[in-house]
Parts: sequence; C-alpha cells; structure tokens
Amino acid sequence: MKILVTSGGTSEAIDQVRSVTNHSTGRLGKVITETLLNAGHQVCLITTRQALKPELHPNLTMIEIQNTSDLLQEMKRIVPDYQVLIHSMAVSDYSPVYMTGLDEVQASQDLSDFLHKKNTETKISSKDEVQVLFLKKNPKIISLVKEWNPSIHLIGFKLLVDVTEEHLIQVARESLKKNQADLIVANDLTQINANQHLAYLVEEKDYQIATSKQEIANFLVKRIQGFDC
Amino acid sequence: MKILVTSGGTSEAIDQVRSVTNHSTGRLGKVITETLLNAGHQVCLITTRQALKPELHPNLTMIEIQNTSDLLQEMKRIVPDYQVLIHSMAVSDYSPVYMTGLDEVQASQDLSDFLHKKNTETKISSKDEVQVLFLKKNPKIISLVKEWNPSIHLIGFKLLVDVTEEHLIQVARESLKKNQADLIVANDLTQINANQHLAYLVEEKDYQIATSKQEIANFLVKRIQGFDC
Repeated sequence: MKILVTSGGTSEAIDQVRSVTNHSTGRLGKVITETLLNAGHQVCLITTRQALKPELHPNLTMIEIQNTSDLLQEMKRIVPDYQVLIHSMAVSDYSPVYMTGLDEVQASQDLSDFLHKKNTETKISSKDEVQVLFLKKNPKIISLVKEWNPSIHLIGFKLLVDVTEEHLIQVARESLKKNQADLIVANDLTQINANQHLAYLVEEKDYQIATSKQEIANFLVKRIQGFDC
Repeated sequence: MKILVTSGGTSEAIDQVRSVTNHSTGRLGKVITETLLNAGHQVCLITTRQALKPELHPNLTMIEIQNTSDLLQEMKRIVPDYQVLIHSMAVSDYSPVYMTGLDEVQASQDLSDFLHKKNTETKISSKDEVQVLFLKKNPKIISLVKEWNPSIHLIGFKLLVDVTEEHLIQVARESLKKNQADLIVANDLTQINANQHLAYLVEEKDYQIATSKQEIANFLVKRIQGFDC
C-alpha cells in the first residue's frame, strides 16, 4: 500500500535565528515507518531536520519541511496520491506575527493593529527588558485531509499532558469525528519516555492499549491490512 | 589545557510541548571540540539534545542542558575549573513568562501585570484565534564569566544577520570590551551554509578571516597555544 507518514515537530520562525518549536523527537514516526517498510509497504515520510530518521530504503521517500505552511503545501500536493495517512507530526497551533518591546505595546490604542505588522529586522534586537510576541492560529491541516482525498484512510494523533484516561479518550473520540479519521492514537506526555510509550488506539466503538512505540507500530500495520483500499 | 566549549542552541519552554528555540546545529562546536581533542587538550562540552555531537573520547566530558537557566547553573559551577572558555552556544535572549489569548490582554488595564502571571496549564489551549506571549530578558551569561573566574581566557561569538563587514566587526569589538574577552568570532548567518562558514576572528587590535568551520577551529587551537595559562 502507499502510505504517507508525518513525523517530528514543526518550527515557526520569529526571526532568522529564533523560532517557536513543537518538540518531538520523531522516534515514534521512525519506528512506524520502519515497521511499515518491513511489512512491504511503500512509504513517504514527511519530517523535519531535527527529527530522528529511518535508514534509507528502496521503498522510502523522505521530504523535509520546517513549518506549518511548508507542511500544508506538501500535503496538499501529495495526499491525493496515498491510500493511508499516519499523521504523527507535532504541528504548531500558532505562528508568530510580530514581536516588539512592551513599551510599544503599552503605547498602542488597539492591540489588534499588531496583527498587521511585520518585523523588518532579520534578528530582533535584545535591548528591551520585556518583549511581546503576537501569534495567530494556523489552519488545522488534519481537518483538510479529507477535502484533498476523500477516500484516504486517516490515522491521527492527540497528545495531551497529565490528563485522566477518560478525558484523553473523549478528546480522541471528538477528533475522530471532527476530522473523519479511522483511528486516533491518543497519548499523554507524562506516560512517554525513552523506554515506554503508553497509547490508546481509539476507534469509533472501542479502543486498545499499547505500551511501547513498537507495539503502537505493530498495531497500526495490522489495522492498515484490514483497510479496504 | 582544560577547555570548556559550549555549543548548540538553548530552548525556553512556553509549556510542556512548545518552546522558543535558538537554532544552532552545533556543527561548529563539534568541529572545534574534535580539533582541540586532536591537539591533546582536555575538553568539557556543554551542549543540547538536538545539537550534533563529537564522538566519545577519553579526554572529553559532555553535559547536556536545555535552557538558559540550566546553562547558567552549570557554567557557574564549572567555569572556575577551566583555563579557556569557547562560548559558541546560541543562548536565548528572552524566556517566556506568560501566554494568553488576545481578549484577556485587551481587557487588561496594566500590561505589566502579565509579567507576574504564570500559565498553570501543562499544554496551553489552542482555542483562541490570537495568542500573546510575554517574554523577559535573560541574564547575559557571557558577562558573568569573568566574575566566576577572573583568569579564564574567554572566546565569545557574535552572530548577526545580513549586516556589513564594518558593522559586524564593530559589534564584535564592543562585545570584546564589555565582556573582557580575548577574542570574538563574529559571523553573519547569510554567509554560513553546510560547505562554507565565513568568520572574522576579532581581537583588540586586528582581525583575521576564516572561511570554513575547520579553519575557525584551527585558528582557535593555534591562538589558545599562545595563551598564558
């Protein structure tokens, strides 16, 4: 099958040396990609410079992106060519618009004016004691996938921090419906470390539990075999 | 000689999944460390998880840090034990204090109140269309080095973006004086890529030019031999 995997975390530039980054090692995406390749699938992995990468493989194509805008452009282009999308990338919810010293912000009559400004400096000066950064919401890429390819099977991810199992599964179910996904892998940052990765593999009617990255990958590969492509 | 090298870029958490990051591959710090080890020096490298690392070596100690506060703590502790510091890490000038939706900011009478607030959420909600992030200036670690160890030889770095050679050298000279450094490696992001790295090695009276990371490293190793330790 032709499967598209996204992995790593996006980074949204504040200026040419600083950015707002979503942390993700890319380790899970790497394990999923390797497991898919071992099962004989053709994989395209969209990832970032910082993320861990699988080794080269004749059935693997890799595309490096940096920010949400790059990701949107690439996915819009290639999602129509794939039968399954496993969207494990940590995508930034917001992008920087304008950064300035507190004085300029305090002197303003209407703060929404700053949403139409742009920094012209290549590296914002570090003279001010306090800086204020305005950020605007990014488009939710996962919600666009089915517009680009209505027949693609969509596996989404939901990462929360220190919540109850019930809440995590409820949020995953909402995401499942809203994004017309087949499955949501829901996990809690407090239950992820180098050796363990607790995840709830949530579908419409039930869910299963995996306790390691390899178990998550094995489950997904098995589940994909059952997809009607 | 006992030499302390810093390398990579610091990352300041906004919440548990997002941060403001200074980008640096750590490639130059890696080359400098390897060149120092080859010349027989003892090296301690303070670096970050994301940065490129040299291979293990009996004369190399590595310490991983994440943010400016970690870095300050580690450097304060170990700077007194070293004869030379090569401070190539890209250190964040600001750290996030509080992030909230634009509505809350617009409703406030005094914006400086936000500097005393803290996000209690582990992952800030992505419901607001616009978010505002308040950041406060970090202590300038390079300016504290001589307080911790008055006899250490200090090699600092200055990265600007798309400036004239004259301006770059002038800013490096100011940093040289202000921080009581022996030498500042001044470079412009527009003249750095995987194959080339133009740098001005600026001392009190003159400067030299290097055109690659290896040339920078060779120059520094040679210069260090001349230090009176």
